[in-house]
Amino acid sequence: MSTLTITNISVYIPDHRITVDELFTSIPVASIPSFTGGDGDYLQYLKSDLGYSSIRTAGKLKDTDLLIGAADQLFDLDIVAPEDIDFLFMAQESDVIQKENSGQFLQMEFDMNRAKIMTISGHHCANVDAAIYMANCVAKSDLSIEKVLIAGVVSIPSAEKRMVGSYGVLGDAATCILLERNATSGFELVYTHMVSLGLLHEIDLTKDVSLLLCKYYTLCLTELMEKSGFSDKDIDHIIIQNANTALINQCISAVDLNTAKVFSDNLNTYGHLDSIDLPLNMRDLMKKGINDGAHILTFGSGINGSFIASIFKYSA
Amino acid sequence: MSTLTITNISVYIPDHRITVDELFTSIPVASIPSFTGGDGDYLQYLKSDLGYSSIRTAGKLKDTDLLIGAADQLFDLDIVAPEDIDFLFMAQESDVIQKENSGQFLQMEFDMNRAKIMTISGHHCANVDAAIYMANCVAKSDLSIEKVLIAGVVSIPSAEKRMVGSYGVLGDAATCILLERNATSGFELVYTHMVSLGLLHEIDLTKDVSLLLCKYYTLCLTELMEKSGFSDKDIDHIIIQNANTALINQCISAVDLNTAKVFSDNLNTYGHLDSIDLPLNMRDLMKKGINDGAHILTFGSGINGSFIASIFKYSA
Repeated sequence: MSTLTITNISVYIPDHRITVDELFTSIPVASIPSFTGGDGDYLQYLKSDLGYSSIRTAGKLKDTDLLIGAADQLFDLDIVAPEDIDFLFMAQESDVIQKENSGQFLQMEFDMNRAKIMTISGHHCANVDAAIYMANCVAKSDLSIEKVLIAGVVSIPSAEKRMVGSYGVLGDAATCILLERNATSGFELVYTHMVSLGLLHEIDLTKDVSLLLCKYYTLCLTELMEKSGFSDKDIDHIIIQNANTALINQCISAVDLNTAKVFSDNLNTYGHLDSIDLPLNMRDLMKKGINDGAHILTFGSGINGSFIASIFKYSA
Repeated sequence: MSTLTITNISVYIPDHRITVDELFTSIPVASIPSFTGGDGDYLQYLKSDLGYSSIRTAGKLKDTDLLIGAADQLFDLDIVAPEDIDFLFMAQESDVIQKENSGQFLQMEFDMNRAKIMTISGHHCANVDAAIYMANCVAKSDLSIEKVLIAGVVSIPSAEKRMVGSYGVLGDAATCILLERNATSGFELVYTHMVSLGLLHEIDLTKDVSLLLCKYYTLCLTELMEKSGFSDKDIDHIIIQNANTALINQCISAVDLNTAKVFSDNLNTYGHLDSIDLPLNMRDLMKKGINDGAHILTFGSGINGSFIASIFKYSA
C-alpha cells in the first residue's frame, strides 16, 4: 500500500473559555470588522448568525503547552513510540505560534530522534489539509517511511486577531495526527485537489470577496469530483471548517453534493480552530460512527486564497 | 522518469553593497557576537578568517523586488511560460521575508494560474534543499506534474540579524529554480538524506555548539553515503554553503570525501545567502562546466539543527 492511513487523531483544546462579549470588549473599536456597520451589529452577528457564545483560548497556557498536550494524548495511548516516528510534519503558520522551530522542540521533548522534520505553511486554515497531502506524497516516494506524525498548534496572539471578518472567531488548540503504512483501520487519502487564488495574497478583511470565494470554492469542489471520478452518491460525509457555513453550503449544493451530509456537531462549540477544525471533525465524526468503506469529503480554505478538497476512505 | 530535473536556475543578487566595516558600525555593541571577546576581534575575524570585504544587500529594493527579479530572469528565457507551472514551492522562513503569502503574490504577478502552491519552511538556511526534496516527492506521487518552480527570497530585516556568529554574514537574494519531468539536461536528484537535532530548537548564537554540529554534519554525510551506496570516487563536486568552511571541511574529510572537490568560487563574494547559496553554487558550477554524468554532493544546514545532504546527477 503506497498511501498512509490516519489511524489516530488527538486534539488538545484548552479548558479556558472567553465569551464573545468579553472578547468583544477587549478589542479597540477600530479593529471591529466594519462590514456590518456598528459595533453592536457585529457582536449580535457573532451570537445569532454564527451561534457563538464562547470560544476556547489558551488562557495562561503557552503554545508549547498545547502542543505537548496533544502529543501526550497521542503517545499515552501506547500505540506508537515517539522513537518510531519516521517523519514529523508541522502544519503551521508562523503568526499563530510563538515558539520558533516547534518541530525541533517537539522532537526534543518526546525523543523523536529518528524523525525527519518538515514544516508546511502558507495555507493558513488549510495547513493541516496540505500536510496530509504532503505526508502521503513523501510516503509514496519513499517506501521506508512507515509512521508519520502531523502536528499543529494555534495560539492566537491577540483578541483582535481572532476576528476573521464574517467567517468566524478563532480559538486555540493543538493536534497530533498519526499516519501509518499498512494499517487496516482509519482514514486513507484517496485524492486531494488544491486551487490557489493569487489575487488574495494581500489579506483585507474589510473587502467583501464572497463572489470570488464562491467561484473558487465551487471550482475546487467541481474539479475534485471530476478528477477523482466521485459523485454525490459516493460521498457519505462532508467535513468543512467550524465557521460560517453560508457560502460553503451554497457551493456544496451548487456542485450537487448534499449539504445534509455536512458534519456540524462542532460548528459553534470551541470557535474556529484554524486548520485544526479538520482533525477535530475527523476525530468526532469517527467517534460518532462511520460505516466501514464510507467516503468522506473534506474542504478547507485559507484566508490567502488557498482551497484544498480531499476525499478519504474510512475503514472501521 | 519519476523524478524531476533541475533545468534552469536564476539567482537575483542586488547590486547594493555594504562593507563589513559599515555593517559592523551600524549594530549595537551588545549585539556583536560575543564568542571572540572584543568588537575589533569579530570585525577582524569577518575580514581575515571568513574573507568578507562586503556583502550584497537589498538596499532600497523590497523583498518582492528581489523575488520579481529572479522570476523575470527565469521567465525572460522563454523556456517555460508561467501558466505552464503545475506547482510552485516557496522555500521560505518567515523571518527573512517581509511579504506574507509570497507564493500567492508570485502567482498573481506572473499569472501562474494553474499552479498549486506549497510553502516549505523550518530548515532556515537549508529550506531550498528541503524544497527540492519535497518537489521530487510530489512529482513521484503525481505523474501529471510536469513543471515545478521553487522560489525563495532572503531579505534580512536588520543589520544585527545578518551576523550568524562565527558562521557567516547574511546577504540578500532571490532565486527561481525550474524543475521539469523528462528533461535531458540538468541536475537530477538521486538521493536526499535529512537529519534533525531537536536540541538546537532554541537558537543561541553565544553558545559554542561546534562539537554537536560536527557530530551531526558527519552523521548526515555518513548516512547519505551508506544509504545511497556512493563513495568518494563516485562524487565529482561538492557544494556547501558560502560561509565558514572550517567545520564542514573537517567533516567532509572525516567521511573520506575529498575537500578539493568543494566548489569555493562564491565563498566570500556576496555573503552567505541563506538557503540561496545552494542554487547560486549549482548555477555557477554549471556555468564553469560539469562533465556529463558527473555526480554532485550538496550539503546544507539550518541554524535550528537541520542537516540535509543530497546527491544529484548532472546531464550535459
